[in-house]
Amino acid sequence: MSNHRPIGIFDSGLGGLTVAKEIYRLLPNESTIYIGDTARVPYGNRSREAVTQFTQELIDALLTLDVKAVVIACGTASSVALPNLQDAYKQIPIIGVIEPAAENAVSVTTSNHIGVIGTQATIASNSFGNFIKKSNPHIEIHNQSCPLFVPIVEEGIINDHPILLEAIKHYLNKLQQTQIDTLILGCTHYPIISHAIADYLPGVNLINAGVSVAQELNHLLINNHIENTSAKSPRHRYFVTDINQNFEEVAQTFLGKQISIEKIAI
Amino acid sequence: MSNHRPIGIFDSGLGGLTVAKEIYRLLPNESTIYIGDTARVPYGNRSREAVTQFTQELIDALLTLDVKAVVIACGTASSVALPNLQDAYKQIPIIGVIEPAAENAVSVTTSNHIGVIGTQATIASNSFGNFIKKSNPHIEIHNQSCPLFVPIVEEGIINDHPILLEAIKHYLNKLQQTQIDTLILGCTHYPIISHAIADYLPGVNLINAGVSVAQELNHLLINNHIENTSAKSPRHRYFVTDINQNFEEVAQTFLGKQISIEKIAI
Repeated sequence: MSNHRPIGIFDSGLGGLTVAKEIYRLLPNESTIYIGDTARVPYGNRSREAVTQFTQELIDALLTLDVKAVVIACGTASSVALPNLQDAYKQIPIIGVIEPAAENAVSVTTSNHIGVIGTQATIASNSFGNFIKKSNPHIEIHNQSCPLFVPIVEEGIINDHPILLEAIKHYLNKLQQTQIDTLILGCTHYPIISHAIADYLPGVNLINAGVSVAQELNHLLINNHIENTSAKSPRHRYFVTDINQNFEEVAQTFLGKQISIEKIAI
Repeated sequence: MSNHRPIGIFDSGLGGLTVAKEIYRLLPNESTIYIGDTARVPYGNRSREAVTQFTQELIDALLTLDVKAVVIACGTASSVALPNLQDAYKQIPIIGVIEPAAENAVSVTTSNHIGVIGTQATIASNSFGNFIKKSNPHIEIHNQSCPLFVPIVEEGIINDHPILLEAIKHYLNKLQQTQIDTLILGCTHYPIISHAIADYLPGVNLINAGVSVAQELNHLLINNHIENTSAKSPRHRYFVTDINQNFEEVAQTFLGKQISIEKIAI
């Protein structure tokens, strides 16, 4: 049995396109609808209440568009809001970035020291750490929030620019002095600068949550018998809650291709 | 005749507290109500439509609180929204940061080259430049948007940290090669880093829009006979649309003192 309905993906902004890219790669048959809440980005320094309300509004908007599953492609919304919302939306599978990336990190570490970087809200929630500890209490977690990485990436400063290198040094020098052999990129913007992070932390495995989520989504579609087995070309649609002047450049940064984006009211 | 009603001040976030500080200094009798739209900060990279809608909602909220005048302590809202809204709110004086700061810059320059720095939206609107050209068409304007300055200041990176110095070099090196003798700090966050900007552009007059706005507000209160001449201590109240964990630190950065902040629904 095949299911043509699209997969809903959302993020606070356009960073979740790095997750969408991994979903296209692993699940080339699946149609998708992406919503970026660009009127209220970034979520990373907002309160738990605000992030939970915004997340609910976006899930509701995707349900109205008849999606068959929802991917929360946002570290902050996955950390802060998903645990409170999963019960309220039993009619549809919802996956966030926390569990898939945490499982992946646990399976990769040999030193039993895992680093986690993310926004202020993600790190304050310790959601990656809590999940990892449940899986293996002997693993030590090294958390670090990196609030400037998102605006730096959105400015297109993604190569070896001194601003990026100074920010990496500022945030990651403590991690460099630990025994971590694995680092979770706990924000969907971070894969864009993974080369510079890898240069600063040589030998450390970087976990791209987008890759982990695409694998988890694949299992979920198969287990629920809702994968699209038709050979028809999939359709990918993109919505944002506010259209600003340079979003097309930013989208190209994340996705590596040009897309056309429509405005949606939430 | 005296008027005890407060002055309403708003900004997208807490940066407008630099303007509030100058108002307290020049008008120590006046009570104020400050609203920071922290649920939707930053405005600088949002569309004109979004910024106009947010600005209307904030003015309406201040009117409900019975203010006698409104100060738009936000470069972006002043640039993008105020010109369209002044007619709609004839019942109350509204002043933004553009005209006072532009007038101040015109009166100070002798080289007739004025630099303007601000958010993406402020610079794209060229609102400072348009006002200056109306006043003196012989003045040449040098615009530069500096999107990373706001998140850097909000991270508390305000001293001579390499991230700040690299960002200043990145954005201001073109201005260094012009004949500007005056630079408008077109965003309320920027006075916090004016010492580092001054070091990079020695001999250039920096125009703090907060100081210009306080002077303009003083004239406006006197001309409208609505100044508070009572000797009673003024009251200053602070509202935000979202309360996050580190706003008190950020407020202290801007205002130089601790304050208590309440949440308001917009």
